[in-house]
Amino acid sequence: MRDVAVIGIGMNEKWGELWEKSFRTIFVEAALNAIDDAKIDKIDAMYIGCMSGGLFVGQEHIGSLLADYLGTGPIPATRIESACASGGLAFRQAFIDVASGMSDIVLAGGVEKMLDVDGGATTYALSTAADQEYECFHGITFPGLYAMIANAHMHKYGTTRKQLAQVAVKNHKNGSMNPRNQFPFETDIDSVINSVMIADPLTIMDCSPVTDGAAAVILCPLDLAKEKFKDHPVIQVIGSGHATDSIALHSRKDLTWLSAVELSGKNTYKMADKNPSDIDVCEVHDCFTIAEICATEALGFFEPGKGGMAVQDDVTAIEGKIPINTSGGLKSKGHPVGATGIAQILEITEQLRGDSGKRQVKDAKIGMTQNMGGSGGSSVCHILEVK
Amino acid sequence: MRDVAVIGIGMNEKWGELWEKSFRTIFVEAALNAIDDAKIDKIDAMYIGCMSGGLFVGQEHIGSLLADYLGTGPIPATRIESACASGGLAFRQAFIDVASGMSDIVLAGGVEKMLDVDGGATTYALSTAADQEYECFHGITFPGLYAMIANAHMHKYGTTRKQLAQVAVKNHKNGSMNPRNQFPFETDIDSVINSVMIADPLTIMDCSPVTDGAAAVILCPLDLAKEKFKDHPVIQVIGSGHATDSIALHSRKDLTWLSAVELSGKNTYKMADKNPSDIDVCEVHDCFTIAEICATEALGFFEPGKGGMAVQDDVTAIEGKIPINTSGGLKSKGHPVGATGIAQILEITEQLRGDSGKRQVKDAKIGMTQNMGGSGGSSVCHILEVK
Repeated sequence: MRDVAVIGIGMNEKWGELWEKSFRTIFVEAALNAIDDAKIDKIDAMYIGCMSGGLFVGQEHIGSLLADYLGTGPIPATRIESACASGGLAFRQAFIDVASGMSDIVLAGGVEKMLDVDGGATTYALSTAADQEYECFHGITFPGLYAMIANAHMHKYGTTRKQLAQVAVKNHKNGSMNPRNQFPFETDIDSVINSVMIADPLTIMDCSPVTDGAAAVILCPLDLAKEKFKDHPVIQVIGSGHATDSIALHSRKDLTWLSAVELSGKNTYKMADKNPSDIDVCEVHDCFTIAEICATEALGFFEPGKGGMAVQDDVTAIEGKIPINTSGGLKSKGHPVGATGIAQILEITEQLRGDSGKRQVKDAKIGMTQNMGGSGGSSVCHILEVK
Repeated sequence: MRDVAVIGIGMNEKWGELWEKSFRTIFVEAALNAIDDAKIDKIDAMYIGCMSGGLFVGQEHIGSLLADYLGTGPIPATRIESACASGGLAFRQAFIDVASGMSDIVLAGGVEKMLDVDGGATTYALSTAADQEYECFHGITFPGLYAMIANAHMHKYGTTRKQLAQVAVKNHKNGSMNPRNQFPFETDIDSVINSVMIADPLTIMDCSPVTDGAAAVILCPLDLAKEKFKDHPVIQVIGSGHATDSIALHSRKDLTWLSAVELSGKNTYKMADKNPSDIDVCEVHDCFTIAEICATEALGFFEPGKGGMAVQDDVTAIEGKIPINTSGGLKSKGHPVGATGIAQILEITEQLRGDSGKRQVKDAKIGMTQNMGGSGGSSVCHILEVK
């Protein structure tokens, strides 16, 4: 396999409720920003993460559509779906494509336009990431599934309501320094706990928002990056791991343990020849506050049950031992489901380039991403390193 | 890149209106048949072609779901979408995965359950393969788009109504020898022309049907196939090509020319170091009778405009110079959109193994597949050869 580098990154200007822009236009905006950042004049192939173009905007055949509107057709363009991990998996397929030698310069993008349907239809579309026959049929949606995980974690490990809220407080603090975010404001523990209840114990401030947004990154062989793309530090993708778990929560041995996250992380560490202690900065999938706590445990940053205490003790703050979600995470940045995994790669690339401004982690050389589908039915991780 | 072979093939027992079976069960049935055929006891990764699980059965996150229900979790499982070319592209991603060295034994599958919603909802779901903003918005659906192509072809080249009908007659004749097919009966030119009009000049017998169905194939490195999987002749994947075109028909220079098919074919011939004249048997994407005529021209089997005459002269019959759609094609076999591209690989593998019974093409050593999305917005081809 060839070594692979990230040479370009881009998002559409701001994530949020983008009534005046369409699915295709926000993708093109993000992709052009990535192309400009990489200073390239050709692309050999595209992979696009998108969870449900069909239910959100009545559009499938998304690879072809977006190559057409970006003006890169007739190149191969393929849509990848794994619910909220669609973006991370589009990046992984782009990585495999370049590593195989099939393509040289590949765009990995993600896009979701979630606000063009009414709220009920959005909740329904998102619920299709769960088991339709055994979970959705009975009426449960994602806040309910993660609330069960939260209650189990609190019961088993004594994780506190305040610790959950502290995840939101930390991520909104980080996000207040990221103007691209949907909700770049700070909050506090009382505000999180006293906001509208969604599914006990999760309030609306424990939940990531519904968002329109797109992101794109450009990959190429490491040798080519070193030779031709010298404007930025060369960032190599040194590890990629993907794993699945039972799609339905009731089939798991332990509600508090995300085994797909654990396995995708282990496979990524193994390929990269790194350990959790080697990671300088990490973006994890905080679709709900409890998800960040579970993910940081499953990735081996903390012992099982110690994730809540870690966030309480500021271990995961920008100045902490292992900064988590310096971008503001899904909580503050927004969560256009197909785009989230790509935006995680963008944040880590910026951190490793030293371009994160007020959010910069000092001396960040090795960064990691973890992108999750459903209630942990799939997870994909990557480790990037400055070369 | 490593050389890659196909070592296992399977479909669910019969394609058609499978009211008593669910999306997940028909996939598992097909996958188990492929696993049995390959005689393997492990899989490293899965790629699943599915066009619109969201709109047809309210289920996304399809890779995770199907790995879970097949019992292959926690392996990586990724859903690939490119409208009706989803299956062919799932096969291509599996090919790239094995070729890269990332995975050894990979299952490429395809599945669509199209009959669990009412007819209007099926037509709407299929229309999302066209340009939602510029085509679907105005009410056109796929029979209308292909009828425009047919009229343009008849006007430009003098292709006749009988030649269109002859595609259906040939494919149903082939399909009458394929008991897995949804419609394994023979027909004649008068019956095709006099059946219910759908979009002039296309009658219902010019259209592929709406189908529930699944298919799966197993890939591994060629060296491993030669060493361990000796029950069948070794079938190597010697070429893979993928291309896109404008998703909307009105953006094309020539309605009669499928340029994504041409380019995907050219890229495949180049990788395989073969020419159209080297191909012994080919499965093309006959979603409508006119589509087969256009595809055979774009793949270089016939000059532009000569595809209608070729079918009239039996050049594409099983005993002809270049047998096309020996399986019965989408017309007779059925067209569960995500599964079609995988079933094409299955037919060609059977032909190259010499296992096609009454449909067997004599001395078939090199076979090709061509799988199309939308009205030609994407196309993916493969060439397989007996080793």
